[in-house]
Amino acid sequence: MLTVPTLILDVEKCKSNIAAMAENARRNNVLFRPHFKTHQSHEIGRWFREVGVTCITVSSLEMANHFAKDKWGDITVAFPVNILEIDKINTLASSISLNLLVESQKTIGQLSKTLTSPIGVFIKIDIGYHRTGVNPESTELISQILDEIDNSKLIKFRGFLGHAGHSYSARGIDEISAIHTGSIQIITGVKEHFTDRYPELIVSVGDTPTCSTMQDFGSVDEIRPGNFVFYDLSQVAIGSCTQEQISVAVACPVVSIHKDRSEIIIYGGGVHFSKERLEHPVYGGIYGQVVEGRSAGWGNIIAGVYVSKLSQEHGTISAPSAYIEAIQVGDLVKILPVHSCMTANLLKKYVTTEGELLK
Amino acid sequence: MLTVPTLILDVEKCKSNIAAMAENARRNNVLFRPHFKTHQSHEIGRWFREVGVTCITVSSLEMANHFAKDKWGDITVAFPVNILEIDKINTLASSISLNLLVESQKTIGQLSKTLTSPIGVFIKIDIGYHRTGVNPESTELISQILDEIDNSKLIKFRGFLGHAGHSYSARGIDEISAIHTGSIQIITGVKEHFTDRYPELIVSVGDTPTCSTMQDFGSVDEIRPGNFVFYDLSQVAIGSCTQEQISVAVACPVVSIHKDRSEIIIYGGGVHFSKERLEHPVYGGIYGQVVEGRSAGWGNIIAGVYVSKLSQEHGTISAPSAYIEAIQVGDLVKILPVHSCMTANLLKKYVTTEGELLK
Repeated sequence: MLTVPTLILDVEKCKSNIAAMAENARRNNVLFRPHFKTHQSHEIGRWFREVGVTCITVSSLEMANHFAKDKWGDITVAFPVNILEIDKINTLASSISLNLLVESQKTIGQLSKTLTSPIGVFIKIDIGYHRTGVNPESTELISQILDEIDNSKLIKFRGFLGHAGHSYSARGIDEISAIHTGSIQIITGVKEHFTDRYPELIVSVGDTPTCSTMQDFGSVDEIRPGNFVFYDLSQVAIGSCTQEQISVAVACPVVSIHKDRSEIIIYGGGVHFSKERLEHPVYGGIYGQVVEGRSAGWGNIIAGVYVSKLSQEHGTISAPSAYIEAIQVGDLVKILPVHSCMTANLLKKYVTTEGELLK
Repeated sequence: MLTVPTLILDVEKCKSNIAAMAENARRNNVLFRPHFKTHQSHEIGRWFREVGVTCITVSSLEMANHFAKDKWGDITVAFPVNILEIDKINTLASSISLNLLVESQKTIGQLSKTLTSPIGVFIKIDIGYHRTGVNPESTELISQILDEIDNSKLIKFRGFLGHAGHSYSARGIDEISAIHTGSIQIITGVKEHFTDRYPELIVSVGDTPTCSTMQDFGSVDEIRPGNFVFYDLSQVAIGSCTQEQISVAVACPVVSIHKDRSEIIIYGGGVHFSKERLEHPVYGGIYGQVVEGRSAGWGNIIAGVYVSKLSQEHGTISAPSAYIEAIQVGDLVKILPVHSCMTANLLKKYVTTEGELLK
């Protein structure tokens, strides 16, 4: 029996999300290198093997190490090289095929001096998100980084990597499509500029909104979406998925009911959901939405019932009186999270709708 | 050497914060029952013993259990009873003096039926925050809850507990003071109403802003502040402390520099800081502020240098060009967090400015 805030996983929906994205990749003739930062789970990782996945993406060396322990042998760390962790890089590079991200000559120089095993590198290109990456128009800077790579015995150039993270601010297919077209065009331009010098270079992109909805990946060779394994309310708002595709919900005990202000207090706060907030067109800022409860799994979102506030351990649910009348202290409510990556990172483990514990 | 985002603790500042709050409590003649949810650390907990603390507050049964293991024998769980965890309650109540929070007859009824060891209870009173608690004017409802308590063999009434969480939206001493006066007046009224029936009842309050700054606690018997052990940028904005009193900073590696847009990218994101955001009067929404680096510890906040964006593992620092010119990839920057409770909950362990690891 669940007694504390618990992340519930609908295995069927999750495997269906994995199968659908694998099929997208096949249809578009791109390598599927899923990002495992969303689930961080050995057992869920193995479901990707069942659809033929052999290469993965992570966002830290610690996570790379975690999955290397479960026999993943080809891992890209999609985060700019943190040279302070050179010891971890060398340990990993001695046992798996490790790809890192670089965006300056200086980092290549530092790696050259301290590497003891071979690695692959992608040059990060800013394809419009403006968080990290080399300006795609700076072909001279890219050439200089490539020269530095070519001078290094242990570093092999793999290609260009971009992340269209600005797709998270899109609302609807047209906006996702515009971002997709723009970002693909940018990274294709860089590819075309350097393809004579490096005929084997590949281009890697992959945010969940574009990978879930777009059909044309042009000359892209690899996609790296992560969030799609669970999806969440943010992805529904963007237009990447329907609410029925969300494969995780947080079960939370009701600990207090305040009919006078139409509020229910749950055990479930910022340390469980994270404080990721979504601007809802009607409710304002929300931290989750309550779904119809079922003994196993859950149903649809209930109109007007949402998490309106979070403190460290408390959550406040706003709800119409008809809902509140039917709720008792000691009930469990199930809540779709705003950002499943952050929620899963906090809750760490999963209980399937069949009651099995996954780690 | 630090290689990943790490929570640095200035032991001297931390012990000074503890001593100052213990002195506040002594001066105001109230019992000091600090909230340990902020640090969640056995070792930091022991520093409270050095100033005579024997009773503590936590926000979950799991945390109560964590501190019971380090010989804390008198613990209040300042969270509405989650009856689903009755087994944990019984186990704890059999070995320590455990106080729980109730706000309905129903919960008392459920406890009466399932308790196997004695517990104390506080009735939670809503002293203005409007998150949980009984309406202070509902003296009839309070009487009914008290009757239910008196009918139970294993439940002893301890008193009334309030939390003026609305002090977190205060800015400056005058606003804190107005909230303090109002909330003390409310809970004093409830105390006076029931003191003939229960001459030994106590009144417990204790948010960090009021406990840090106020001098008159009227007929309050106990205070339960927690955040003050570290403080943070939110408390500076409220007016609870100065920046010099903040005893934790997060050290983060610099992984990328973008001079063209005056940004530095650090290894340090929502999974390290939490996504708690503070509205700064000049910079807008911020997630942290950078301080002057020193080999051990840190100096003052650097004007214009702040965390403007966070994703899962990346942080973006906005900074003037003079600062950026002096920064190199591979440097460590030190950042004061917006909300130290959430940051400490994510990072779990501390490295002191002397390099010692605390858990």
